[in-house]
Amino acid sequence: MLFPCYQAECRECKFCKSGKTNLCGKVRAATGVGVMMNDRKSRFSINGKPIYHFMGTSTFSQYTVVHDVSVAKIDPKAPLEKVCLLGCGVPTGLGAVWNTAKVEAGSIVAIFGLGTVGLAVAEGAKAASASRIIGIDIDSNKFDRAKGFGVTEFVNPKDHDKPIQQVLVDLTDGGVDYSFECIGNVSVMRAALECCHKGWGTSVIVGVAASGQEISTRPFQLVTGRVWKGTAFGGFKSRSQVPMLVDKYMKKEIKVDEYITHNLTLPEMNKAFDLLHEGSCLRCVLDMQV
Amino acid sequence: MLFPCYQAECRECKFCKSGKTNLCGKVRAATGVGVMMNDRKSRFSINGKPIYHFMGTSTFSQYTVVHDVSVAKIDPKAPLEKVCLLGCGVPTGLGAVWNTAKVEAGSIVAIFGLGTVGLAVAEGAKAASASRIIGIDIDSNKFDRAKGFGVTEFVNPKDHDKPIQQVLVDLTDGGVDYSFECIGNVSVMRAALECCHKGWGTSVIVGVAASGQEISTRPFQLVTGRVWKGTAFGGFKSRSQVPMLVDKYMKKEIKVDEYITHNLTLPEMNKAFDLLHEGSCLRCVLDMQV
Repeated sequence: MLFPCYQAECRECKFCKSGKTNLCGKVRAATGVGVMMNDRKSRFSINGKPIYHFMGTSTFSQYTVVHDVSVAKIDPKAPLEKVCLLGCGVPTGLGAVWNTAKVEAGSIVAIFGLGTVGLAVAEGAKAASASRIIGIDIDSNKFDRAKGFGVTEFVNPKDHDKPIQQVLVDLTDGGVDYSFECIGNVSVMRAALECCHKGWGTSVIVGVAASGQEISTRPFQLVTGRVWKGTAFGGFKSRSQVPMLVDKYMKKEIKVDEYITHNLTLPEMNKAFDLLHEGSCLRCVLDMQV
Repeated sequence: MLFPCYQAECRECKFCKSGKTNLCGKVRAATGVGVMMNDRKSRFSINGKPIYHFMGTSTFSQYTVVHDVSVAKIDPKAPLEKVCLLGCGVPTGLGAVWNTAKVEAGSIVAIFGLGTVGLAVAEGAKAASASRIIGIDIDSNKFDRAKGFGVTEFVNPKDHDKPIQQVLVDLTDGGVDYSFECIGNVSVMRAALECCHKGWGTSVIVGVAASGQEISTRPFQLVTGRVWKGTAFGGFKSRSQVPMLVDKYMKKEIKVDEYITHNLTLPEMNKAFDLLHEGSCLRCVLDMQV
């Protein structure tokens, strides 16, 4: 069964061959502007006018056309209406922990933002045997659900007068071993770095900030041993590793169903976005039959 | 023979025991304000007024008092007027490459600032079999000397209209594998990160910026795989590893003499600082006999 992957994997380019990254450069120039590589044209149209591809997959559609390097082959028994979540958010969180940060057993972990990506970070940290998994969110309603994904403690920055990085440093005798920003807020990215322990704390940026925004900190934070990194699709190579993630789901080694809070139909798509913005929805699966 | 170390190593604190950092916390609270730990007083005075200790070592003096955890035991045959350079700048550069960045053979390396620390980075990169070692400095007079330390190419930002990070990306087909900021300039720290290759480039901040200054960049730089770190004393544990560095010097495996450009007497100390500011001096050794 075929599985469209927004992150390509050609296995031929400098990136794929490096062994150091999952960012393939092969079809990016075309997918970045919504066309196919060979003729720089779209495969969608309405009334003769082109509609451009999105993220190299264009999956808000019953049929699509993707590059060969953007398709993984997965277990044909896997339920597509579930494992589609393994195309972005869930692997991003799991891989941020397993591939990018490489969290060790016993580590103290802080997670900023308890949406799907943050909860997947918690799931990954629990699997890595982290000793404390601290969830940070300004919506305390998210805390109950987060327990089921492995979060052991909760902090709502609104409950504190001190900067959240100081709250976390105090709570952990010097700072956390690993932190993950799963929001896309540049101020929170700074807090996530600065709540890390001097000497070894590593902060991973997972969220995507608005265009043009910048992160900042005092360089002393890095000179005294903290490390600032980021991750895209959790460092997983799409064609090589999505099939493995699907297998893990089929063997009940990773969650997927638990992230699906709503099921809607394709014409209800805009309602799905409203639910996401409200914060009540984790992931919404659309029934593509119209 | 005893060797004073500004970075302590108590082998008992959380930092020393972590195995992840060389930053010992044991005597910092005292040395940070220029006193000894047991009575919070200085061991220096003039006309009955205290003179405070500096950097935990106070070595602009014929005699000094240091904490036991701030002294390494080195080969008694080593010439102190040479190996004193292994107390800070030279190990900082070597260790930034070997311990912090862990540069692999074949890597492309960029070094911003060709003073002693930058040249020690070059020496470390050459020993690590880097394929290209690009030295960047606004003083082209430094280039000839830098060749002797392993620098293979030179770039003077003043010779280019484009931002230096773009110049380096163009020169290296996408960016360098490792970059080192050896100046203490926050704008250069940004350039050093942004000249790194997407997917894996790692930038190490070695220079110390002025108090209050901040570094910044777009988070996309990190999300697309670059890593921002820093180093202090090159990650070397002082009491455990300075003796090994002295031995390496005695076996001619690392340079020391080549960094000493001037020899002055203690009363000429202020002239030594003038020479450093001029940029003509790498390291100046003071004869302490007065």
